[in-house]
Amino acid sequence: MSGRDVAVVGAGMIRFGKYPDASYPDLAQPAVVDAMRSAGIEPHEIDATYCGHSFGGMLTGQRILKGLGMTGEAIVNVENACSSGAGAFHQAHAAIASGEIETALVIGVDKLTQFAGGTLPLNVEDHEVASGMVMPALYAMRAQRYLHDYGYDADDLARVSVKARANGALNPFAQFRKPVTLEEVRASRPIAEPLNLFQCCPTGDGGAAVVLMSAERVRRSDATPVWVIASVLHSGRYMTGFRDFTLPEITVRSAKDAYEQAAIDPGDLDFAEVHDAFTIAELLYYEALQLCERGEAPRLVVDGVTALGGRVPVNPSGGLLAKGHPIGATGVGQLAEAYWQLTGRCGDRQVAGARVGLTHVTGGGIAGFDHGACAITILAA
Amino acid sequence: MSGRDVAVVGAGMIRFGKYPDASYPDLAQPAVVDAMRSAGIEPHEIDATYCGHSFGGMLTGQRILKGLGMTGEAIVNVENACSSGAGAFHQAHAAIASGEIETALVIGVDKLTQFAGGTLPLNVEDHEVASGMVMPALYAMRAQRYLHDYGYDADDLARVSVKARANGALNPFAQFRKPVTLEEVRASRPIAEPLNLFQCCPTGDGGAAVVLMSAERVRRSDATPVWVIASVLHSGRYMTGFRDFTLPEITVRSAKDAYEQAAIDPGDLDFAEVHDAFTIAELLYYEALQLCERGEAPRLVVDGVTALGGRVPVNPSGGLLAKGHPIGATGVGQLAEAYWQLTGRCGDRQVAGARVGLTHVTGGGIAGFDHGACAITILAA
Repeated sequence: MSGRDVAVVGAGMIRFGKYPDASYPDLAQPAVVDAMRSAGIEPHEIDATYCGHSFGGMLTGQRILKGLGMTGEAIVNVENACSSGAGAFHQAHAAIASGEIETALVIGVDKLTQFAGGTLPLNVEDHEVASGMVMPALYAMRAQRYLHDYGYDADDLARVSVKARANGALNPFAQFRKPVTLEEVRASRPIAEPLNLFQCCPTGDGGAAVVLMSAERVRRSDATPVWVIASVLHSGRYMTGFRDFTLPEITVRSAKDAYEQAAIDPGDLDFAEVHDAFTIAELLYYEALQLCERGEAPRLVVDGVTALGGRVPVNPSGGLLAKGHPIGATGVGQLAEAYWQLTGRCGDRQVAGARVGLTHVTGGGIAGFDHGACAITILAA
Repeated sequence: MSGRDVAVVGAGMIRFGKYPDASYPDLAQPAVVDAMRSAGIEPHEIDATYCGHSFGGMLTGQRILKGLGMTGEAIVNVENACSSGAGAFHQAHAAIASGEIETALVIGVDKLTQFAGGTLPLNVEDHEVASGMVMPALYAMRAQRYLHDYGYDADDLARVSVKARANGALNPFAQFRKPVTLEEVRASRPIAEPLNLFQCCPTGDGGAAVVLMSAERVRRSDATPVWVIASVLHSGRYMTGFRDFTLPEITVRSAKDAYEQAAIDPGDLDFAEVHDAFTIAELLYYEALQLCERGEAPRLVVDGVTALGGRVPVNPSGGLLAKGHPIGATGVGQLAEAYWQLTGRCGDRQVAGARVGLTHVTGGGIAGFDHGACAITILAA
């Protein structure tokens, strides 16, 4: 990790869900106010704001802060699909680490109910999308390949949903707070074989915020710091044709760099919030993040290793499958969860004694062409 | 200026205009290729890319670079309305100045022909916009106030268009390449009194790119560097009610900070590219940028001070009024022009002996509420 030490010192979010009448400022402002309050700082102490979103339109960060009387300094809106919020965090971290500023506000926000049916407006200029390769189709193909290659079945996918919903039931910020049984997951509506409805994250709306400070500034503050020991952002390597698409190259590479920055091993993690947009995704990311060997991911779920109370709980918040996935808000929501876990504020879903946690989002990778974005952050109490 | 020295080492752009059949990658890729070629570098030498745009949708930078086989490293998409491209430049500059990276690619791109009528999709949650305070109306009010306060008339506005079109006629990258007479400006269709059609910038499509390098990297390169001696990005201060809205607070404050960073006086500028979205805007920015005293701006135009061949040519490229204003592309297009001016590559529109130039964009300021973004860059040969 080069540059100065940087800490998360406050976090806020609204419960993710469907708020069709809410504006972007409505979704984000409560999160900003809570993050500022928990950091114990005043608006004039924020040197710059980074706002991650994909569908808010022009000057989203400015519109959010205008209503709070907080404009004046630099506000940068960052778009990186599912990594928009975490991409904004990455920019804020770099600005403080470099000495450019002392204190930054990071906002993540998006409103998917504006797209009535919940389908994202993908770019039809992509020939993969034009030929039907939308996200559920892509992940279904990955799931088929994975189950075939390693000899698992659809229940191995379904158990990921059961775990996610069990955690979400304990999280007041989760869109879904009702546990589901394996039988209920099996019985839910088919989407793209072998994935059915309860194996796909919901669409929805949300807002989240965190406050970052330099170590120097933390010393003059009463806030409880959680240190950023790695912040990595990459785009995917362009590769023509299909290769092994059950091992996402962008996450593998980003994770390797993150562990190196943080100078830790994957075994040092006490928990992880990962991008489980679909059940198969969580399993593939266990392997890409080196939480287990290739082909072993479903065993972690069966054995409870990644459940609350297990060796390395994954998505104690409920993850995208239960907490929800309002694109730009997702990464910042993960960082808020990580801050709360590492400061012991998670109530029933608390990972006991958590000292080190990882957050991971990735998006935009269509078919064999991972040209999207991946952001990995590692935080330490 | 804190941090390491940073230089622009290459630039490219397409002629701004109407390309209804072009995709975002189509608009940006030729500019990227030209910028890379003029910098004399290969794709693998780019450490990070910052892509400014307002209306490109998800992962615009990734989609542009994917087609060039240039993904892999961080790609950050930046939205800041008219300051999107210059905001992306500001992020790239900070990343190099801080030592985070050595070489960055900055892209600015937008396609306004996608909005058929050419009207921007403004955010109707803004009560100013909902009540009809769209951009031409706002600038018309500013114009009325300025003409009244300082005793000028509509011809003082119209002369700005005549100058812009004269310069644009010399610029192969300009959307409008036909000069206009004072009489033609007067006779053009009324838009919002006292502004008529030829006093408003056109909508259109465009792409532009520049390459930045650290001083250390420049030394190992054959490129011709132009040094960034100031890079400032601010949002507007939130102010309730109307104050003197012929002196744009955000530009005044950003300019003051930029001159201080660069350690120069406004009188040291050899030229400036300013945000002349409307004729009145150029005049107000002369004063906000301290090129003259309050109330004197129209005299600079009458006396030819800001014409090509004058003491400080403003918008030698033709500016937004003639070169065009494809939102996200505009700021990067200005930086490309400044790079070419400072390396003596501007042909008929060359500012003789130019050594120091300023670029200025600002956007999003509605009515009395300047909550937008302003970016000012000062470059020196």
